[in-house]
Amino acid sequence: MNIVLAQLNYTVGDLRGNADKIIGALAANADADLVVFSELALTGYYPMDLILRPDFIAAMERHLARIMAATQHIRAAAVVGYVARNASQVGKPYFNALGVFSAGAQLAEYHKQLLPTYNIFDESRHFEPGAGTGTLDFRGVKLGFLICEDGWPAYSPLYAKNPVADLAALAVDAIVSINASPADTGKAELREGLFRQLAKRYQRPIIYVNQVGANDSIVYDGHSFFCDRNGRIRARLPGYAEAIAAVTIAPGTEQDGKIAPLPASFEEMAYRQILLGLRDYVRKCGFSSVVVGSSGGIDSTLTLALARDALGADNVTAITMPSTYSSAGSVLDSQTLCERLGVHLITHPIGALFNQYRSDFGGAFGEEASRLTQENIQARIRGAILMEFSNQFGALVLSTGNKSELAVGYATLYGDMNGGINLIGDLYKMEVYAVSRYVNRLAGSEIIPAAILDKEPSAELSPNQKDSDSLPPYPVLDAVLKLYIEHDLMDSDQADAQRRILADNEFTDIAKICRLVDNAEFKRKQAPPIVRVHQRAFGFGRQLPIAQRYREKDDA
Amino acid sequence: MNIVLAQLNYTVGDLRGNADKIIGALAANADADLVVFSELALTGYYPMDLILRPDFIAAMERHLARIMAATQHIRAAAVVGYVARNASQVGKPYFNALGVFSAGAQLAEYHKQLLPTYNIFDESRHFEPGAGTGTLDFRGVKLGFLICEDGWPAYSPLYAKNPVADLAALAVDAIVSINASPADTGKAELREGLFRQLAKRYQRPIIYVNQVGANDSIVYDGHSFFCDRNGRIRARLPGYAEAIAAVTIAPGTEQDGKIAPLPASFEEMAYRQILLGLRDYVRKCGFSSVVVGSSGGIDSTLTLALARDALGADNVTAITMPSTYSSAGSVLDSQTLCERLGVHLITHPIGALFNQYRSDFGGAFGEEASRLTQENIQARIRGAILMEFSNQFGALVLSTGNKSELAVGYATLYGDMNGGINLIGDLYKMEVYAVSRYVNRLAGSEIIPAAILDKEPSAELSPNQKDSDSLPPYPVLDAVLKLYIEHDLMDSDQADAQRRILADNEFTDIAKICRLVDNAEFKRKQAPPIVRVHQRAFGFGRQLPIAQRYREKDDA
Repeated sequence: MNIVLAQLNYTVGDLRGNADKIIGALAANADADLVVFSELALTGYYPMDLILRPDFIAAMERHLARIMAATQHIRAAAVVGYVARNASQVGKPYFNALGVFSAGAQLAEYHKQLLPTYNIFDESRHFEPGAGTGTLDFRGVKLGFLICEDGWPAYSPLYAKNPVADLAALAVDAIVSINASPADTGKAELREGLFRQLAKRYQRPIIYVNQVGANDSIVYDGHSFFCDRNGRIRARLPGYAEAIAAVTIAPGTEQDGKIAPLPASFEEMAYRQILLGLRDYVRKCGFSSVVVGSSGGIDSTLTLALARDALGADNVTAITMPSTYSSAGSVLDSQTLCERLGVHLITHPIGALFNQYRSDFGGAFGEEASRLTQENIQARIRGAILMEFSNQFGALVLSTGNKSELAVGYATLYGDMNGGINLIGDLYKMEVYAVSRYVNRLAGSEIIPAAILDKEPSAELSPNQKDSDSLPPYPVLDAVLKLYIEHDLMDSDQADAQRRILADNEFTDIAKICRLVDNAEFKRKQAPPIVRVHQRAFGFGRQLPIAQRYREKDDA
Repeated sequence: MNIVLAQLNYTVGDLRGNADKIIGALAANADADLVVFSELALTGYYPMDLILRPDFIAAMERHLARIMAATQHIRAAAVVGYVARNASQVGKPYFNALGVFSAGAQLAEYHKQLLPTYNIFDESRHFEPGAGTGTLDFRGVKLGFLICEDGWPAYSPLYAKNPVADLAALAVDAIVSINASPADTGKAELREGLFRQLAKRYQRPIIYVNQVGANDSIVYDGHSFFCDRNGRIRARLPGYAEAIAAVTIAPGTEQDGKIAPLPASFEEMAYRQILLGLRDYVRKCGFSSVVVGSSGGIDSTLTLALARDALGADNVTAITMPSTYSSAGSVLDSQTLCERLGVHLITHPIGALFNQYRSDFGGAFGEEASRLTQENIQARIRGAILMEFSNQFGALVLSTGNKSELAVGYATLYGDMNGGINLIGDLYKMEVYAVSRYVNRLAGSEIIPAAILDKEPSAELSPNQKDSDSLPPYPVLDAVLKLYIEHDLMDSDQADAQRRILADNEFTDIAKICRLVDNAEFKRKQAPPIVRVHQRAFGFGRQLPIAQRYREKDDA
């Protein structure tokens, strides 16, 4: 049996476009036995509360009928993910469904049994869990179906059911799994390892088709694969790109496909993840260009370099907005950087505006603006200038705060936090440096100037200000933050490694840092989407109240 | 049996404070048989991902032990909501639990069976559903327990189980329901009506204890009650305030308690909801005062009046920030308003800053700022000035966009959308007028000047600008928006009423308005919390992707 893995990039809600893409892939692979598309391919994953609109489901069904019709005169059958109605009077009104369409008719419908509802997943909000297994005898092969989370109970103890074991007990010949599995640190390896174990344990080949592309914060890496009954990878599709590949299942005669590599390092993963994240957000929101405030610091520098690599230099504008407190080096570094990137750099000094704000402040409020107020004024002037450029020229503003800064609240709301999306908001500060060095390695040259990589971090909002005035050194800060933000997701080795950093640096004032994190929740609630890289990013996958009083140390 | 309904205002995560409050109420009612506290009273509802922190649960358990110890030497037993560990190796690690504590020991633990996961509720994210009923024979009375959603299957078809019917089948004498039931339009009546029906159908008295107070966007109204087996309300606690009341259950001898009224109108409900929402947000976040930009328009006017009523005039500052385009009437109206409210008004003209931005813009970008850009510059100057005041004097900024404006995106991100919380963001424009008139009726005078109530809405960002230049009249706009945003929550009468408004006004360009709503999603994602009034408010309870292409009309 010839099976085609169709790893495509869908836009949420673009029912016509997604259906056309599916129909196109069917036509191009008309002689295969089965063309497998990913989970909720027709709606794009994840449509969220669009599912609650009756007209949305009705429109989706019209496009599903088009897909079914497209199988009428070809050999290929289609395996497609979509939203199915729950005919029962009880339960949520919809299922997360997989359908098999062949010769213009529907042969099977399977309903996802395990609905992930944690981190960035919220499927119990919309779907009723399916009640049983899904199998189909098709052209002499007994196929068993899984949808994404259905394959994961061996990894997590969340569910009493094990759909994979249930399929194996039914003596299926092969398992077809359709997925929308997002990437984060180590995820591609984890996912593939898990399914290889399942294949081996149950002695069944597995066809695993993932969606690729980014929707808002979440990036789906693709890396679809086919592994044989011995858990050996026989084909793997590339990461971070659309791809289509055919495999053959037949005991003992599996045909090897190409095996694309997985990312070789954290830096490569983060880099590719962010590039696709930006590219898709810009495209799917209808933008074509971006603008970045260039301070000469490492954060805006990496943001500019990533944006250039994602969109091309012509679609990126940098604006340097020097103040009295900006070092000459900073402006010069921005110029060097933009020359090397080939990015247009505009200079917009903020001195006159800053003076006007300060003088108006005294006039209206009868005293001089405090140091904190003055620092924020500068950040907000810069944020307003970036938005002016955006309003006038239609470029999307990229905000430039890294995860460490956003964690402790060292960012100005309505200032440097302004933007449509943040590329590096899920990179801790030390990771910003690591990915920056990766960018240089990849370019084979010092695209990012050594002067920027080596300078001491400073917001440059007050005279001689340095980040280290009020924060511990970044390696220490990052260790505290990882322990506070992602502790429950770490294994004991990972946690011990972070604790060792604290011990080696004799750092004990952990409670102060944690309190900064708690107190900055209100800022993060108003932050733009952040391209997700780690398992727990700020945003939708980490939901905390603003008005809350829990402080670990108080209740110890 | 004497049962005390303890309707208290908890702060999320304030384990020590919440436990102290519970222990205090126990001591004050030591001779009762049972003191009933609300759902998740110990953690406050809803703790969200605090539940995922192992140290949080451990700390909570220490405070639960304190509550248990407090029952040691008194007659009263306590019914308390908290997070319980799931001892099974399978499923989510916690239950949403109810415990009965008496004489220093735990007599019973019940686990919530139905976990709401829709709108603002996300309990499946954290909890495993309980497997069975909870009853307790206590001092000769067989009590049956419910936690909030457990009582609602008669209302919604979401669940296959019916815990109320299950309790009735076990011949309990009375049902004790602990709740965290938020208020929205018509909710208090709906809730009470539902439980009265249950009492009557199953011939069981029901003790219903709700939490009161606001946590972030969500307001819990209290209105706890006791209804007898005939569905008659025998006691009702006041809305929007802490209260404690004792009732007696004994067949035929129920003792009547006081019956506090429910809100008499939408306007009263919205008013009380918003006052408590603001008061609690300010207090629980550690603020004491607020600042509002006063434009002389109805939105900032109502915001100022509500803030004054919630916090007192001394804790409210207004800033008027006139530009070239501000009408003389607007400044004068702000002055009249603030005089009547007793609120301090500061004047901070923005002309010099506006000119500086425009001239810098030309210098840096080589052309004149467009009309849209100039409008946004003014809004952002004003937003920055409010934040200056906040930074310098520690006052929380209130943003002032109404639901109609936020829906269609007629608000400037990082400008008039700035703020820590928005009081009127869940009021459609016509409701802003209605609540404003209610404020005047309540005050018995024209606290809100007629000149403001009667003037034609304008953003005053361009010469002679009026909202009606680009939007349909507000009654029509509101009808379109209600149909688009809350259609699936309306009954057919409600939907028909809105459709009639459109028909009467011969308004057909609905698709254009819907597209505006879709396109403004990115702004709302960065908006501050909005005090929730309607069933579906913008924010956590309405989750839509930003990058999405579904447009109803395209797929019709």
